[in-house]
Amino acid sequence: MEARPTDRRSLAVILAAGEGTRMKSRRPKVLHEVAGRSMLGHVLAAAAALDEIAVVIGAGKEDVAAEARRQRPDAKIFVQEKQLGTAHAVLAAREAFAGADDIVVLFADTPLVRAETIAALRAALAEGAAVAVLAFEAADPHGYGRILCDSEGRPAAIREEKDASPAERACRLCNAGLMAVSGTKALALLDGIDAANAQKEYYLTDIVARAAAAGLGTRLVVAAEEEVLGVNDRVQLARAESVAQERLRRAAMLGGATLIAPQTVFLSHDTKIGRDVTIEPGVVIGPGVEIADGAVIHAYSHLEGALVGERATVGPYGRLRPGAKLAAQAKVGNFVEIKGAEIGEGAKVNHLTYIGDASVGAHSNIGAGVITCNYDGFFKYRTIIGENAFIGSNSALVAPVTIGDGAYVGSGSVVTKDVSADALAVARGRQMEKEGWAESFRRVQKAKKSGA
Amino acid sequence: MEARPTDRRSLAVILAAGEGTRMKSRRPKVLHEVAGRSMLGHVLAAAAALDEIAVVIGAGKEDVAAEARRQRPDAKIFVQEKQLGTAHAVLAAREAFAGADDIVVLFADTPLVRAETIAALRAALAEGAAVAVLAFEAADPHGYGRILCDSEGRPAAIREEKDASPAERACRLCNAGLMAVSGTKALALLDGIDAANAQKEYYLTDIVARAAAAGLGTRLVVAAEEEVLGVNDRVQLARAESVAQERLRRAAMLGGATLIAPQTVFLSHDTKIGRDVTIEPGVVIGPGVEIADGAVIHAYSHLEGALVGERATVGPYGRLRPGAKLAAQAKVGNFVEIKGAEIGEGAKVNHLTYIGDASVGAHSNIGAGVITCNYDGFFKYRTIIGENAFIGSNSALVAPVTIGDGAYVGSGSVVTKDVSADALAVARGRQMEKEGWAESFRRVQKAKKSGA
Amino acid sequence: MEARPTDRRSLAVILAAGEGTRMKSRRPKVLHEVAGRSMLGHVLAAAAALDEIAVVIGAGKEDVAAEARRQRPDAKIFVQEKQLGTAHAVLAAREAFAGADDIVVLFADTPLVRAETIAALRAALAEGAAVAVLAFEAADPHGYGRILCDSEGRPAAIREEKDASPAERACRLCNAGLMAVSGTKALALLDGIDAANAQKEYYLTDIVARAAAAGLGTRLVVAAEEEVLGVNDRVQLARAESVAQERLRRAAMLGGATLIAPQTVFLSHDTKIGRDVTIEPGVVIGPGVEIADGAVIHAYSHLEGALVGERATVGPYGRLRPGAKLAAQAKVGNFVEIKGAEIGEGAKVNHLTYIGDASVGAHSNIGAGVITCNYDGFFKYRTIIGENAFIGSNSALVAPVTIGDGAYVGSGSVVTKDVSADALAVARGRQMEKEGWAESFRRVQKAKKSGA
Repeated sequence: MEARPTDRRSLAVILAAGEGTRMKSRRPKVLHEVAGRSMLGHVLAAAAALDEIAVVIGAGKEDVAAEARRQRPDAKIFVQEKQLGTAHAVLAAREAFAGADDIVVLFADTPLVRAETIAALRAALAEGAAVAVLAFEAADPHGYGRILCDSEGRPAAIREEKDASPAERACRLCNAGLMAVSGTKALALLDGIDAANAQKEYYLTDIVARAAAAGLGTRLVVAAEEEVLGVNDRVQLARAESVAQERLRRAAMLGGATLIAPQTVFLSHDTKIGRDVTIEPGVVIGPGVEIADGAVIHAYSHLEGALVGERATVGPYGRLRPGAKLAAQAKVGNFVEIKGAEIGEGAKVNHLTYIGDASVGAHSNIGAGVITCNYDGFFKYRTIIGENAFIGSNSALVAPVTIGDGAYVGSGSVVTKDVSADALAVARGRQMEKEGWAESFRRVQKAKKSGA
Repeated sequence: MEARPTDRRSLAVILAAGEGTRMKSRRPKVLHEVAGRSMLGHVLAAAAALDEIAVVIGAGKEDVAAEARRQRPDAKIFVQEKQLGTAHAVLAAREAFAGADDIVVLFADTPLVRAETIAALRAALAEGAAVAVLAFEAADPHGYGRILCDSEGRPAAIREEKDASPAERACRLCNAGLMAVSGTKALALLDGIDAANAQKEYYLTDIVARAAAAGLGTRLVVAAEEEVLGVNDRVQLARAESVAQERLRRAAMLGGATLIAPQTVFLSHDTKIGRDVTIEPGVVIGPGVEIADGAVIHAYSHLEGALVGERATVGPYGRLRPGAKLAAQAKVGNFVEIKGAEIGEGAKVNHLTYIGDASVGAHSNIGAGVITCNYDGFFKYRTIIGENAFIGSNSALVAPVTIGDGAYVGSGSVVTKDVSADALAVARGRQMEKEGWAESFRRVQKAKKSGA
Repeated sequence: MEARPTDRRSLAVILAAGEGTRMKSRRPKVLHEVAGRSMLGHVLAAAAALDEIAVVIGAGKEDVAAEARRQRPDAKIFVQEKQLGTAHAVLAAREAFAGADDIVVLFADTPLVRAETIAALRAALAEGAAVAVLAFEAADPHGYGRILCDSEGRPAAIREEKDASPAERACRLCNAGLMAVSGTKALALLDGIDAANAQKEYYLTDIVARAAAAGLGTRLVVAAEEEVLGVNDRVQLARAESVAQERLRRAAMLGGATLIAPQTVFLSHDTKIGRDVTIEPGVVIGPGVEIADGAVIHAYSHLEGALVGERATVGPYGRLRPGAKLAAQAKVGNFVEIKGAEIGEGAKVNHLTYIGDASVGAHSNIGAGVITCNYDGFFKYRTIIGENAFIGSNSALVAPVTIGDGAYVGSGSVVTKDVSADALAVARGRQMEKEGWAESFRRVQKAKKSGA
């Protein structure tokens, strides 16, 4: 996928120190999730091909460091003690610069950047530029810094909107913030940036004018606006989610899956979907899900950490929780929850059932309303159901318990002891009838009601 | 929120007499709902700051009057016997004019008008205008009356599209219908409007030209097109719903809630959502819901008249009906219905359960498939479950019944008598096994099947 | 609806031989579905008024032929052995041309064409044209063939984009592919088309230039872009579904149904919805559903092959499977599945229930968690519940079984024998209590846990 320049040693500096106050959250901004993965995680994934990763975090943000290390154990963490601007933030990682040919500056709150775009920035350096700037054409440029180019189309400066002349403002080419800087020139350029501005901050954007003034090559790389969407509040977070979902859905459809109403299907960054899979409207797929060829996910299903075998069907209203594994042609029907359980080939769990911590053998049939009672308030136990077994409706299987191959459990039974293969087990009360009882009951109740 | 002019006595005249035949409904148009409240209710809420409210209804539309009084008990109701145009409708409320400095004319089928806009119309009167007209810039002005302005930008007339010259038609500033009229001039201006037009109706819009001709001040207030969306059929009703939802979702997100897919989350006009609340895709929240900080509402949940405590979780497929109250960290899982019941702190109701007319004590665990049997066909009874109790899966609790603190109910039990604290209750049949029964049963059934 | 030219004998030639490799599917492209009907089925429906139908299929595509005959038993099937272009495909059906005045060429992968548009193409022939071409104004014409017109606005040729001059490319009037050809001229025109182009294919589009060159009349008919959307991959299939759904929803709303969030409601091509029906967000309606006046379908319901009576209510989370018939004012509540069953007038099935192969009499009440056990692993049996019966919660009714009128089944019963009218049936274990058991159980389990 990525055109990776091979000989050049690369470093990504990921800025993750922003406060994110507009998120109004206890959680650090960059740990908020898009498509089931933190924003920081998305940026780390886009930078996966780079040799080294430096993450700049704010003071006391250990959970941000932990998330970075979770995905990239070799990430170097740097703390920016005070928030003195983006150039200052990049310099917090200056110890990591040594040996890097390409330094790519990324933002952990700009989660949709693609590996291809990072490669394009690096390619510009490989072709001789000292600084490569990522720009986007804004539908509404209001509020963005504009990129000013020289007569040959090379970026010469980045102008904040408030400082821009009307002509400069008319330019729709805006600064995305991301850039790549030559490793041999980075320190000199960055250390030269001053804080001589109203906010008294050190702005990374000044590097462009400095490089141009020094006669160093600068280059422009243009991305789609949606790719460089920055997230500062939860409205923008929802927008990023929407773009990420569009990408995932499109890839699934072009790969041979039918999404009847793609905008109502929510995938995760790691969802794997086979060919001729059909997903009905209203399906949520959390992390860790694989759906094999020919499977059908009916409406209002919810899957997480689950495998769906070939031509298996789920839902409507099927819930697969982590550890659910459906073999080929298994069927999980409506109002059914499967957790930590294997459902064998062609087995059916059609209605109103909870199968937890269990295995169901191939071609077994689990009746409506069956419950595996897997928890006693302290421990969890397993239920083992053999092949070709038949569990009558509304039965409760009190784990630990084993139902043998071909065994039959009568409807409404509470099974507390193992059932032998090919045996019938029944555990329920005897039916008694009181003639006329309902009639007199109604008479009494009606009298009460009218008396009330 | 609202910049309310303080010294001026104000009256809202809300026109609610339209037939609404294009709705094809037995229900009066203005009682159709947006975000869980009637359109009339929305307009009454926007006008809440005004001193007096007059609602003009059609003959025999007592349910419209009742809805007005429900929300605004002091509303004066006027009946417009014949539908002779908007000016005629406003004059139906002429008795209410006395003493009003500002008369604001609103339409009950234009439900998205905001209090701020009403305040802006009134502010124009406070600054000396006799008539303030609400306009909007139409994306597609086709079919709307155009506002013609004099050389100083003051509205001079409203021209119906069919009467407009090409130049006038090119104007995208359209008449929203809503206006404010000085109380001291209203009667004279309105009484002067005639019905000398093709439809022989008295048009309120004529007031602009009359005021201008009389040398009285006129003013323009401009609103967004979506704010003045009028509802005449159910396609437009759906559009109004969509705008109302956008507003509610945006406010929730900016307030610190994550809506992963905002366009699939449906809120009500009175929904209260705390910080760091997460709402997954596909959630419907009816009127009367409060969700406290840190709560998580998983996909495909449906809440109405319910309280969700701090860090409590609901769903996926959680249904909270009126009277459901979840304490902090309570958990309501999939395919669970809670009605008229308190779920104590940290208590869990995880799967396939109906808890109705009940209370569940703190830290109790309700197993999968448990049902509170609260109804005997005539009366409803309560189930009381103490703290730290454990109700085994697939049990039925026949109300009225009390389960003591720390008690344990065996799986599959039908509990009809109270259970003492810390006791075990079991009520189920004994398990019996018939060896080989299933094998011979299958033989017989297969024979029947092949014989058939 | 359709202005059908009466005297002219008509033939539709539906091209359905395309490979559809970009669908990445085992299923032939034209059998993929939109709004619950194959794309081929949609085109057949649009052409229903035509006298004869010829369907051109690819070699070995018997399932396409079968689908054509299913909907139109008199359809003539022609096999195009090699894919040599659209003109070649039309000529595969040449045997069907005899006697046709109007030959309309349709594409089975262009499923949204309307009968009115086909009529307009035919009307152009009736007025003397030899060829009538369907065009559309493309929002982005990139990649489409452009229609070149003579000075009188008649189509003179269709130019592929790559062959078009810049001026020709600027034209946004694009070729939709569909056309009508005079039956008396079709063979001569089509046989004259050669394959003298880079792809060596016989292009139907060449017919326009040939007709114009021969001095035969040509005519343009313009359709909306969405109507002529061609489906080549699953992203386009989703777009076609979206357009079809928009049409269906709009018709339902204008007919007097409230769709609170239309974009989350999915209808089928044959869905019938009455007046004053309310459909909440998140509802999927498969083929064969009728919803009568005043019914309410709550959120997250899923209906297929079902009838919903007047003022009946379904859901939230109501699932009606084929054969579900709800009488007036019947109520099906949350987490309830109904299959092959009649629910009588005013009867209630409110929660967590499976009613399959059954009938429930008027005004009966089915408690929460009730299951009809209709299947023994081999055969299905019916459950008959009379009128005014009361089935206590969490009961299992083991079919075949009959519950008489007015009978009462105690909660948690497993009913295996018929219950007489007005009787009470109870079938459950007796409740026993072991004092202090839970306390000592907890002590033991806690010790184990801390020991672990």
